[in-house]
Amino acid sequence: MNPLEPKEFRRQGHMIIDFLADYYQSITNYPVLSQVEPGYLRKLTPSFAPLNPEPIEAILQDLQQHIIPGITHWQSPNYFAYFPSSGSTAGFVGEMLSTGFNLVGFNWVSSPAATELENTVMDWLGQVLKLPKTFLFSGSGGGVLLGTTCEAILVTLVAARDKILSQIGIENIGKLVVYVSDQTHCAIQKAAHIVGIHSKNFRVINTMKSTSFALMPEPLLSAIHTDVQNGLVPCYLCVTVGTTSTTAIDPLGLLCKVANKYGMWVHVDAAYAGSVCICPEFRHLIDGVEGATSFSFNAHKWFLTNLDCCCLWVKDQASVINSLSTHSVYLENNASDLKQVVDYKDWQITLSRRFRALKVWLVLRSYGVANLRDFLRSHVEMAKNFEELVRKDKRFEIFVPRNVAVVCFRLLPSAVAKIGNGRVQDGHVTTEDVANEINRKLLDSINGSGTVYMTHATVGGVFVIRCAIGATLTEKTHVIMAWKVVQEHADAILNH
Amino acid sequence: MNPLEPKEFRRQGHMIIDFLADYYQSITNYPVLSQVEPGYLRKLTPSFAPLNPEPIEAILQDLQQHIIPGITHWQSPNYFAYFPSSGSTAGFVGEMLSTGFNLVGFNWVSSPAATELENTVMDWLGQVLKLPKTFLFSGSGGGVLLGTTCEAILVTLVAARDKILSQIGIENIGKLVVYVSDQTHCAIQKAAHIVGIHSKNFRVINTMKSTSFALMPEPLLSAIHTDVQNGLVPCYLCVTVGTTSTTAIDPLGLLCKVANKYGMWVHVDAAYAGSVCICPEFRHLIDGVEGATSFSFNAHKWFLTNLDCCCLWVKDQASVINSLSTHSVYLENNASDLKQVVDYKDWQITLSRRFRALKVWLVLRSYGVANLRDFLRSHVEMAKNFEELVRKDKRFEIFVPRNVAVVCFRLLPSAVAKIGNGRVQDGHVTTEDVANEINRKLLDSINGSGTVYMTHATVGGVFVIRCAIGATLTEKTHVIMAWKVVQEHADAILNH
Repeated sequence: MNPLEPKEFRRQGHMIIDFLADYYQSITNYPVLSQVEPGYLRKLTPSFAPLNPEPIEAILQDLQQHIIPGITHWQSPNYFAYFPSSGSTAGFVGEMLSTGFNLVGFNWVSSPAATELENTVMDWLGQVLKLPKTFLFSGSGGGVLLGTTCEAILVTLVAARDKILSQIGIENIGKLVVYVSDQTHCAIQKAAHIVGIHSKNFRVINTMKSTSFALMPEPLLSAIHTDVQNGLVPCYLCVTVGTTSTTAIDPLGLLCKVANKYGMWVHVDAAYAGSVCICPEFRHLIDGVEGATSFSFNAHKWFLTNLDCCCLWVKDQASVINSLSTHSVYLENNASDLKQVVDYKDWQITLSRRFRALKVWLVLRSYGVANLRDFLRSHVEMAKNFEELVRKDKRFEIFVPRNVAVVCFRLLPSAVAKIGNGRVQDGHVTTEDVANEINRKLLDSINGSGTVYMTHATVGGVFVIRCAIGATLTEKTHVIMAWKVVQEHADAILNH
Repeated sequence: MNPLEPKEFRRQGHMIIDFLADYYQSITNYPVLSQVEPGYLRKLTPSFAPLNPEPIEAILQDLQQHIIPGITHWQSPNYFAYFPSSGSTAGFVGEMLSTGFNLVGFNWVSSPAATELENTVMDWLGQVLKLPKTFLFSGSGGGVLLGTTCEAILVTLVAARDKILSQIGIENIGKLVVYVSDQTHCAIQKAAHIVGIHSKNFRVINTMKSTSFALMPEPLLSAIHTDVQNGLVPCYLCVTVGTTSTTAIDPLGLLCKVANKYGMWVHVDAAYAGSVCICPEFRHLIDGVEGATSFSFNAHKWFLTNLDCCCLWVKDQASVINSLSTHSVYLENNASDLKQVVDYKDWQITLSRRFRALKVWLVLRSYGVANLRDFLRSHVEMAKNFEELVRKDKRFEIFVPRNVAVVCFRLLPSAVAKIGNGRVQDGHVTTEDVANEINRKLLDSINGSGTVYMTHATVGGVFVIRCAIGATLTEKTHVIMAWKVVQEHADAILNH
């Protein structure tokens, strides 16, 4: 047995390439959202691992028959759920190379190219985003490739926590306050819990529809005031550029001004919308980033860099390294001792790390910045198109102004009034309750059809349907078809 | 531009398969340890990302000319450094499929097969390791695939912390104590820092050469006693099966007995040696695991499952979920609401997660448990062989008994006495100092040759060279050659 025998590697590798190319070609034949029931696979798989080898052909057959029916097809052109998970040939090829080399780049010496290429692509990306020099290696900062935004937030929150605790003493951890809006991703609440921020000091500032669910500086300032008066210590603010529910854009510049007055760490979570900021006409979304302490976006969301790939930049390397560096005798080496190199193990939670820089390098070079801009613009155009279609149907409303390529819409209460009329008149429910109920039913009906997949948000008590455009294979025809599907299901429900 | 156009995907995919197969075929032509200098790549890469697309052929040429010289070849048969990073065709194919589907399996509904196949393979692996039923889904526990052991430790440490703090109050976090040995991996110190354990409560128990650097129950018990008397609260014990320096095996059963008396969480870190416990003759290494709270091993180290893949089992799902679950409206779904399914986002630090179960499934099915056992045994046999070769050369010693497939050896002080004689007689240094210096020089000389790559450990003040056998392509001839290289470099240094 030689599990890396080149001939067999070649045979199976080519087979899988063809399998995946066929998959992309036939992807619209599958229901986008898997229609299986919980526990479906248990009945199809043996209870014990096989003692003897099985041929790849048999495994692929099971993959086709048993696994694929349980897969939700995030690469389908009819996938409009959550945010996109943006795959590409370049991203795939980069992952193949990384998996093939299978090196562990925890520090420079363990594979110098892994570290140095990461330094390079992080500066490239930072420049393309027009991040201030203070965030780049060529300036005074630097960037790192992590798995997900959750890691970026945990890394920066630990650094922020330690920076303040080094001044006020670790026994005062109960005084640290973290600020978010009610639209901020739950990752930050989880990270705050992990690092020991008291839950009573996790300050959630309410947003409003009238300001498009963005975090406003005034209520933030007022919350900070109260906390400071109560002897608490403001520690960390998470500003979001493109929230998960409605892609709200927090006003970065104004919020940084408030936070900077109190010496807080400001992290900019641009997980989704960061990608589109490579287009000059969208760069304003992160205006004011020079006032932030750290910035991250997910290249795996909308930058053609297959999962997982979160890009994090920090102004102050030292604050992260002080918190996260470790020393082990077995990792000692001259380059590290002489401080000539970046050792990325000290920039992240884990020690081992994959060679993610390859896929970012492949994506930037294979497509080029100009094409990448145009590609993202095409998604925004499709979203505009979808938005116009929604507007033309008077039964629907666009719930919040579209910022990028996500459209939040719903059937209007007036359109569904007839259905719940009896209950509303009885005083059991409001017209808004009925609208929520019917829009949920509409979404379930759409997704149950398998033709498209969209997801929901509930903001300000209102259930809205989200159409997130950005799957790599999506074209204008898919978007038009998606709207037709929505209309047909709405017809069926309303005329029932 | 269609970045997932099947024809181009096929063309590039096939090209990369051939590139990697050629790479494996010619891998011994490269120096194992990269010989580049810090900053080498900056001179070779443009300062800005390209505006326009470049053909894959040009990128591959740069890869060959600029990147590969900076790569340390972890897949080389002459790689004996750190621990292996064990690649295989099955592991690679599993990653290809996962990257190709590019789905985000944060909860069940986002792709049911991803969750359910993970449930299946974790039970398969648990059975193969003969873990007690209490760790399996088919019993009362369950398993999850994470990236690295660092994550497994962070997950379990947060759960352990919260379990106790729920009884004594979060304000008493400064009383929690974490216990490790001086051979435990630094991951646990980092995790303890992240979750807010006070550094003065990070208890490092010394080990001794006479007990092969294993953590002994007596000093642990005595440390706990003292802590309890001082009003502190024992929280978490990390037991290692196969330490990084010398693959020491902590006596699991005895240590659990001590820890259980005090209601502590016991995590078993079998990152390296866990794999070989699938062989009946090595299963005794984890005897006593029934007394532990959680158990993890890295399938990417020595189980042919390309980076990254850490397998974690816990007895008490609820304790992990209580600490790490999040609630977001946008992730609400019927299956989760009805608690019919596992939502792995609540078992880990991050939200997004790759479909790692595929590669574990591929490895288990492609090779079968019987062949996997034999393959691991073959590495142990090669290590035995290397050990015998070392023993035959009277200039060298085996520093600690070999437990699995890592051999720790060094030039004896008596063999190098001549070199440092003057300084020793002057009283400037001891013979042990000289031995450390010369062994370090020997290792640098070996690695500088590029023919093999080994790394070092310093244990009990002694610098030893580690020969870790387990790279997939390593055969007996490579091991014999490696020993020849060591001898030649030793000859050169000693006869200089």
